[in-house]
Amino acid sequence: MSTALFDHPYISGLLGDAEMAPHLNAESQLAAMLRFETELAMAQAVEGVIPETAASAIVEAIDHLTLDFNALRAGVERDGVVVPALVAELRAATGGKHGRHVHFGATSQDLIDTAQALALKEIVKILERRLADVLVVLDELHKRDGKTKVMAHTRMQAAIPVTAARKIESWRDPLIRQNQRLTQVRNDLLVLHYGGAAGTLDKLTGSKGPAVRARLAKRLGLRDIPRARHSERDGLANFASWLSVLTGSLGKMGQDIALLAQSEVGEIVLASGGGSSAMPHKVNPIGAELLVTFARFNATLLSAMHHALVHENERSGAAWTLERMVLPQMTVAAGAALRTAAGLIGSLSFRPTA
Amino acid sequence: MSTALFDHPYISGLLGDAEMAPHLNAESQLAAMLRFETELAMAQAVEGVIPETAASAIVEAIDHLTLDFNALRAGVERDGVVVPALVAELRAATGGKHGRHVHFGATSQDLIDTAQALALKEIVKILERRLADVLVVLDELHKRDGKTKVMAHTRMQAAIPVTAARKIESWRDPLIRQNQRLTQVRNDLLVLHYGGAAGTLDKLTGSKGPAVRARLAKRLGLRDIPRARHSERDGLANFASWLSVLTGSLGKMGQDIALLAQSEVGEIVLASGGGSSAMPHKVNPIGAELLVTFARFNATLLSAMHHALVHENERSGAAWTLERMVLPQMTVAAGAALRTAAGLIGSLSFRPTA
Amino acid sequence: MSTALFDHPYISGLLGDAEMAPHLNAESQLAAMLRFETELAMAQAVEGVIPETAASAIVEAIDHLTLDFNALRAGVERDGVVVPALVAELRAATGGKHGRHVHFGATSQDLIDTAQALALKEIVKILERRLADVLVVLDELHKRDGKTKVMAHTRMQAAIPVTAARKIESWRDPLIRQNQRLTQVRNDLLVLHYGGAAGTLDKLTGSKGPAVRARLAKRLGLRDIPRARHSERDGLANFASWLSVLTGSLGKMGQDIALLAQSEVGEIVLASGGGSSAMPHKVNPIGAELLVTFARFNATLLSAMHHALVHENERSGAAWTLERMVLPQMTVAAGAALRTAAGLIGSLSFRPTA
Amino acid sequence: MSTALFDHPYISGLLGDAEMAPHLNAESQLAAMLRFETELAMAQAVEGVIPETAASAIVEAIDHLTLDFNALRAGVERDGVVVPALVAELRAATGGKHGRHVHFGATSQDLIDTAQALALKEIVKILERRLADVLVVLDELHKRDGKTKVMAHTRMQAAIPVTAARKIESWRDPLIRQNQRLTQVRNDLLVLHYGGAAGTLDKLTGSKGPAVRARLAKRLGLRDIPRARHSERDGLANFASWLSVLTGSLGKMGQDIALLAQSEVGEIVLASGGGSSAMPHKVNPIGAELLVTFARFNATLLSAMHHALVHENERSGAAWTLERMVLPQMTVAAGAALRTAAGLIGSLSFRPTA
Repeated sequence: MSTALFDHPYISGLLGDAEMAPHLNAESQLAAMLRFETELAMAQAVEGVIPETAASAIVEAIDHLTLDFNALRAGVERDGVVVPALVAELRAATGGKHGRHVHFGATSQDLIDTAQALALKEIVKILERRLADVLVVLDELHKRDGKTKVMAHTRMQAAIPVTAARKIESWRDPLIRQNQRLTQVRNDLLVLHYGGAAGTLDKLTGSKGPAVRARLAKRLGLRDIPRARHSERDGLANFASWLSVLTGSLGKMGQDIALLAQSEVGEIVLASGGGSSAMPHKVNPIGAELLVTFARFNATLLSAMHHALVHENERSGAAWTLERMVLPQMTVAAGAALRTAAGLIGSLSFRPTA
Repeated sequence: MSTALFDHPYISGLLGDAEMAPHLNAESQLAAMLRFETELAMAQAVEGVIPETAASAIVEAIDHLTLDFNALRAGVERDGVVVPALVAELRAATGGKHGRHVHFGATSQDLIDTAQALALKEIVKILERRLADVLVVLDELHKRDGKTKVMAHTRMQAAIPVTAARKIESWRDPLIRQNQRLTQVRNDLLVLHYGGAAGTLDKLTGSKGPAVRARLAKRLGLRDIPRARHSERDGLANFASWLSVLTGSLGKMGQDIALLAQSEVGEIVLASGGGSSAMPHKVNPIGAELLVTFARFNATLLSAMHHALVHENERSGAAWTLERMVLPQMTVAAGAALRTAAGLIGSLSFRPTA
Repeated sequence: MSTALFDHPYISGLLGDAEMAPHLNAESQLAAMLRFETELAMAQAVEGVIPETAASAIVEAIDHLTLDFNALRAGVERDGVVVPALVAELRAATGGKHGRHVHFGATSQDLIDTAQALALKEIVKILERRLADVLVVLDELHKRDGKTKVMAHTRMQAAIPVTAARKIESWRDPLIRQNQRLTQVRNDLLVLHYGGAAGTLDKLTGSKGPAVRARLAKRLGLRDIPRARHSERDGLANFASWLSVLTGSLGKMGQDIALLAQSEVGEIVLASGGGSSAMPHKVNPIGAELLVTFARFNATLLSAMHHALVHENERSGAAWTLERMVLPQMTVAAGAALRTAAGLIGSLSFRPTA
Repeated sequence: MSTALFDHPYISGLLGDAEMAPHLNAESQLAAMLRFETELAMAQAVEGVIPETAASAIVEAIDHLTLDFNALRAGVERDGVVVPALVAELRAATGGKHGRHVHFGATSQDLIDTAQALALKEIVKILERRLADVLVVLDELHKRDGKTKVMAHTRMQAAIPVTAARKIESWRDPLIRQNQRLTQVRNDLLVLHYGGAAGTLDKLTGSKGPAVRARLAKRLGLRDIPRARHSERDGLANFASWLSVLTGSLGKMGQDIALLAQSEVGEIVLASGGGSSAMPHKVNPIGAELLVTFARFNATLLSAMHHALVHENERSGAAWTLERMVLPQMTVAAGAALRTAAGLIGSLSFRPTA
């Protein structure tokens, strides 16, 4: 039993994700937060909010910063988030005169939510590409096996014969729709959060706030929104729902494949499957089962992301931490499901009803 | 304790919905299913699938049909769904010669899923109007109290002063976004399901299937889709997610109001609240609490709608029944949340921080 | 689509429960609350907390009370709970002089939680008896078909031959364990809640509080506990978990039966099953599917009962209402699952592997 | 964003668990599985199932075994579980003549479920001790601050004054009850799973199966049960429920503390709290919020453990993997909640209502 299956020495053979991992580790999170501070300082210098020399000093300090992980760890233990300790290290590195310009007008959640958006930007690209891959192998399967006559089953009983195409289409079309839905989901996900203590950019007077924010958003490649969504989490809940509809649709495919590949049915043949330590002859439909697992995993965790909408006041430590415990797992499970699905579909074939 | 709070003799004072109820009762469900049979017969007559005299006989029979609820009830007990019993009654009423043309090429799930889409069409209109109402009262509140100075709270502690406008906007904007998201959600919700035994319209040869389906969709005011989505439930899971983001966003508002209305805070004053049987002096923030309840209720039930995506084969009795136990409740909870929110917002006012 | 499937004109053929219904309707809830008031008045008279004449007047008033449901409904709309309106009616009926002794030292939650415990007392008896019935039919099945040779399946693939007994035992034993676990669950469920405004029986001085409470508990047949558990909901969450382990164990059985009864497997034959409106020849495993549905329904709703443990302060309207929306449904689903299971097991037989 | 918060370079400052980690890592899992094989071989030698020389060779091989993690990782990718690859390595190390006696009569799930039980045995001890610690600090708080007059709140409004003792007792008593409930939970958790391919110990004839199993259970310090519970997961679901009632009860306490520590209430003062990067003056109730987070996290994940009860046939890869993704996290969250609670309670004090 392990709490880190996605990063486990050997279970990662099933659940790990070498492509996503670099966007999810501590180093990339810290790098993203420091990128926020770099671009913030530069945007504020252009807008005359902080002196140009201060911005240069901050950028210089970040370039040469060596973080003290023990201090960060102790900071998280004390503050609940890493940002105060990180900013303290950065201020010290920048030096007394310019140090007070570090992180100006920003708050912890600005950094963490924006760093998350930056990570998700890369991860959504990976998901999108994998989804395209799955659609390709499904199309190939449709072309090759679509005319095979198999049995439709309703309510767990044989119904009437249909073609394999009918089954493949019912797996493929929800994925096509999910692909189309991604545009809207992305819109409220890949946004800049820069609001300061209470989300009002109170330390930036007049039009400085929106001006700095617009520059910062542009430099980070995120959408500029009129107010940091510290307490408005609908964009994240929507993304989580999207992930769960995706894994749920793949889970339906996995369930069907496991049923069609049953020894007694045999309308799907798997090129390879998992071995058994007790029965070496068996071909277990590992991938098909996993798709069901990921579907149920995300269908369950999704609930937490929706509970986290009840985010009290201007910032809720409780709801926010809940998101952070749940969303990364849902994302990686979706990535694993897509990768598993592509491999599974690419290695199966339909057989006509006996 | 009661299983029917939405229809309860007195608890419906809180949770009942006189406006939605007519679209959710047994009579309207049966009427919708019979409407399906009427329009199906007429569309099939136009397309030459069944004789015009048969269609007339079916329409005539439906017009005069008196249903035997005991038979329907026994049918559900036996078949798990009402349709076989309903069709049997309709065939008998239509008469021997034409009776066999009743329900031609259709299956139980066609009727039930389409009847659900017809009910949801009306219910979504109600939700949409109520959402507009909430936005109106929020705008009024913004106009009247927006400049009041109140305290922002982060992590359950007083942070810095802000205007009430900042709070109201953080309640309003997610609702505006939900309103915009409805267009996409509706698209995969208000669709015609007509696919027959295995979803392939196997009994209608050549182009007859699509032609009848297109006519039927048009007559019922639902979108025509290329294949009944008996086993593709992403449209329903998406709608459920939409409902839950809606109630979650309202729940966040309710939580904020309950916190701001605390005796020790007093930054929100409720014109009226619930009385207590032990402490007659109290003004309980009933509506605010209820918004939190509905948010958590839907955040929980949502999970079942996503589990139901794992819908085995061409029709899953298990997953389908799960949807039917959950979705109506989520819908009515969303309606109750919107109604509660409008009343609550309309009766509160902000007070400056003491 | 309907919000009241358990009380639906025809769907109740599947989900309704004529035996449980009398303990769950509005009349029985009100009767239980009035019984609380009756016994409270009498216990308080014996202990000298209120005059004996007042107690007599209250009992007399309750005996002749005709409740005004419109007033109760309006009360719920205003107060969020029915008790203030109910107590007002009872005070009026008792009359000015004695009226103020009605409901002495009690609060709304005392009545509602205790009424719930009284209902659950009867319902748990029903569940216990039905569980015993299921165990009986499983034993009969074991005796009759236990030696039949069938195929074990692991990971959705045929493994090695086993006897039907091995399968039946894996269905039966978790139910035997659930039966044993009921003793502990019942202990924290069937308790008296009498605590007053803040759960401290503040209006009863000295030893009067515990003395009245002990008498009241005895008269109501509930366990006396040292403090009303207005905000300690572990007993209810435990009961909900028990219900969900029960339905989950039955769901496992249902899933197995649906798999074994597949057309291609045929190791279980159902004496009867649901008909199809499109394919009259089919025998759908309605009961088996339903067991899966109930399992997933309760596994989902359970989450809400555990969220409701986060019950703020001395009484949370939000968490409490959430319980009331969820627990009755879970209870009735468990009852339906047991009834369905008994019928299903009683009508199936094993066939040897072909 | 990270998928490994419990093992994260700096977030582990909040969520990590140096005491539990050694029982949850890959090394300890493998060690437990090898311990199973060691004791199995020895028990089988005593019972004459395998030659004594074979047992000696196996034990010797395990003593000197250096595992190839790349091979294990590839094995998991292929087989879905690590056991076939592990057994292959062990067979190779034992050598041709005796190698075939390795893992005799066992299956993958025997090893993994038993290794999990062995880990849980240590973890439950840790949880039990931490729970005792929390009860101690609560008792100390009760003794020191119990008489402080504070305000009871019902439905988020001030109700009547009570003593702090009343609040502390409502936090403590559910924990006392959970402690008592642990005995029953442990009984179905810390069991030996040894059943072979289909759970029937088919390779051990006559009384050899039960005899080996009894010896193995004794040597491993686990309870001997008449049949491996490969597909009977009620013991695990019960344990998950226990964890969630525990974190839910602690979450209620955390919610209360966060509410009482609000700037405007001030009836609880925290000795220390988290700092803010934007508002250095703040004392954020990090620990109190975290308790709420853990409660909602486990309340959500619990649902998956109950869905996993629907475990098809004699072994379900899908349901089993779901458990393995969820239960460890719930366990560690419970451990973190207990540790957080002890620290939080030990550093707060009550203040009388202003």
